[in-house]
Amino acid sequence: MADQYAQSSEDIRPTGVPAIPAIRWDEPPEGPVLVVLDQTRLPGEEIELVCTDAQALVEAIRTLAVRGAPLLGIAGAYGVALAAARGFDVDEAADALAGARPTAVNLAYGARRAQAAYRTAVAGGAGDERAAGAALEAARALHAEDARASATMAAHGLALLDELLPGGGHRILTHCNTGALVSGGEGTAFAVALKAHRAGRLRRLWVDETRPLLQGARLTAYEAARNGMAYTLLTDNAAGSLFAAGEVDAVLIGADRIAADGSVANKVGSYPLAVLARYHHVPFIVVAPVTTVDPDTPDGASIEVEQRSSHEVTELTALPQGPGFGIEAGGGIPVAPLGTQAYNPAFDVTPPELVTAIVTEEGVLSPVTAEGIAGLWGGSRDGRVRME
Amino acid sequence: MADQYAQSSEDIRPTGVPAIPAIRWDEPPEGPVLVVLDQTRLPGEEIELVCTDAQALVEAIRTLAVRGAPLLGIAGAYGVALAAARGFDVDEAADALAGARPTAVNLAYGARRAQAAYRTAVAGGAGDERAAGAALEAARALHAEDARASATMAAHGLALLDELLPGGGHRILTHCNTGALVSGGEGTAFAVALKAHRAGRLRRLWVDETRPLLQGARLTAYEAARNGMAYTLLTDNAAGSLFAAGEVDAVLIGADRIAADGSVANKVGSYPLAVLARYHHVPFIVVAPVTTVDPDTPDGASIEVEQRSSHEVTELTALPQGPGFGIEAGGGIPVAPLGTQAYNPAFDVTPPELVTAIVTEEGVLSPVTAEGIAGLWGGSRDGRVRME
Repeated sequence: MADQYAQSSEDIRPTGVPAIPAIRWDEPPEGPVLVVLDQTRLPGEEIELVCTDAQALVEAIRTLAVRGAPLLGIAGAYGVALAAARGFDVDEAADALAGARPTAVNLAYGARRAQAAYRTAVAGGAGDERAAGAALEAARALHAEDARASATMAAHGLALLDELLPGGGHRILTHCNTGALVSGGEGTAFAVALKAHRAGRLRRLWVDETRPLLQGARLTAYEAARNGMAYTLLTDNAAGSLFAAGEVDAVLIGADRIAADGSVANKVGSYPLAVLARYHHVPFIVVAPVTTVDPDTPDGASIEVEQRSSHEVTELTALPQGPGFGIEAGGGIPVAPLGTQAYNPAFDVTPPELVTAIVTEEGVLSPVTAEGIAGLWGGSRDGRVRME
Repeated sequence: MADQYAQSSEDIRPTGVPAIPAIRWDEPPEGPVLVVLDQTRLPGEEIELVCTDAQALVEAIRTLAVRGAPLLGIAGAYGVALAAARGFDVDEAADALAGARPTAVNLAYGARRAQAAYRTAVAGGAGDERAAGAALEAARALHAEDARASATMAAHGLALLDELLPGGGHRILTHCNTGALVSGGEGTAFAVALKAHRAGRLRRLWVDETRPLLQGARLTAYEAARNGMAYTLLTDNAAGSLFAAGEVDAVLIGADRIAADGSVANKVGSYPLAVLARYHHVPFIVVAPVTTVDPDTPDGASIEVEQRSSHEVTELTALPQGPGFGIEAGGGIPVAPLGTQAYNPAFDVTPPELVTAIVTEEGVLSPVTAEGIAGLWGGSRDGRVRME
């Protein structure tokens, strides 16, 4: 039943038009579809993947065509709505989506929220079509909330930077990709840097390339270039030299899950930056919507960290693919001897004592404590979706 | 005048024969040549580059076909001997070689040592041929000393590990490549791990891939596999997770230059490991021959760090090349938007207070102090070569 097909950007937009959205719901005559920008092909090609059912979306999530904590939440919700609209089993779709990647809590949150809306409608006597409409409504609401949350986080984050670094001219180091490609709005950590740029107070965005899949080189550099920001790319291991030279005023990252004690799971490579930041007395700031907090995960040790295939490290697989790049689509280039095994965790966990502040749409939490984290959910508009 | 050509391993050795040496002097009928293993093509292909003059060797050094501090010293000496044997200007060759890469002090040391031998012979009334023989003798002596130093460092290093970690079953994290490919013997840090392996006391060698040029994935994994060691590859930014999980007992790295105060310049990414090691109370051990110490460099801030091209980061250039890998030789694959600039220092500098010990052929220096560093040169067999 899974169906997913690609359409190139030339089909969908003329040259010169702004970036195509990372995700959009569409209703062509053949029936509703969820259209996602294939992030594995950026920056070389802008290709959209059209998902006609939840299973196709699960595939797109696993291959990282769709990625980034907030966007995964939105995708999870739309995926459930898609299953409902297409007449598939909604609970099955929600389970498959919620479990597609183990670390990102937003994914389960989004899927469960749309599932709850569907169930509530059914319990209230709605037919299939109205219940599907309720699921879609929930997805759209989450999408819009995320866009608003993004704008609010950007404002809170820039105010925090200005307070911590009164000199202005911020030099920000970031890791992985946290911009419009992961969000219903302009993102999390990246949105703060973008707001600083627009306010004339971003001196430099240092972009970690983020091995193994190079989301920094491929995606953050792409977003920084599109926005005309002053940015410089570096290998992850060159960040130490920047800190030592006093070239980093603050580290800004996103989060994939925040435990109840304030431990932050984020893209592998975040924790070493936190240790470097502490050693050099540089603020380490996490920017994430409240939905990233998982009150059911008591601490960092309880966070399940996804281990990914050795091939992502032993072969160069995350390359922009296609005729312009001289390699066959899907073909990895081996860079280590045959048979080499790799340790390849997708995330790492930063303990709360290394986090200067967590910036959410509800405000800035600093210092990061369990009490403060608990307060975030209390102040949230929607509270937590709980499924029996 | 520069001449450098490639010959494949099939031409030079039957299958099943042990690794071809990283460098060797040869005297075919056409005249003496210096033959180096092209490390940019490993592990996919074992191709030797044949250098017929010093300029060809300078090229091989700049492109990193020949690399690694001790090997660069040996190469520098042979390069001067080659210029002498071929009747080229010896001083010009020595200057070109000594300046081919700015950070590695061994390179200048080797070139100057052979040049000094040549000059001494000339001053003593020797003709061109005998003076050239003296330069070659100096190169061969350095080569043999390096092999002996390697064995001695390995013994000192393993004794230190056994003392620091009495439980045995060492789990060693290493960065870049420091084995037989960089040495007249079995290397520096890698030689220690290899000796632990042969003694049955290496539980795991954690191999940092070492971006941007992947010397860990391409070269250290290749040497570890050849030697049947238990090794696991990781992206540089995943080391933090290993430390946090208590999976690293010690860090062992080499050095490209050690300043008089004990500051260590080594492959970029070494300094963040030193900070992580300190944060996790893990020994951080530098293994390097005494020739790596530069008494003329007073401290870390005085070490010139080579900045390399953005393309090493914005494109994947350091790939095993050739028909087996599906890309054109020399063709980089872009992974960042066009026009992206990268910060790409080849080295970073670790201050002495983060270095647990420096292991040399003269013994183990711990703690690392300026007095201790000065004592190393005093105890050295050859002292320092000074040129007017």
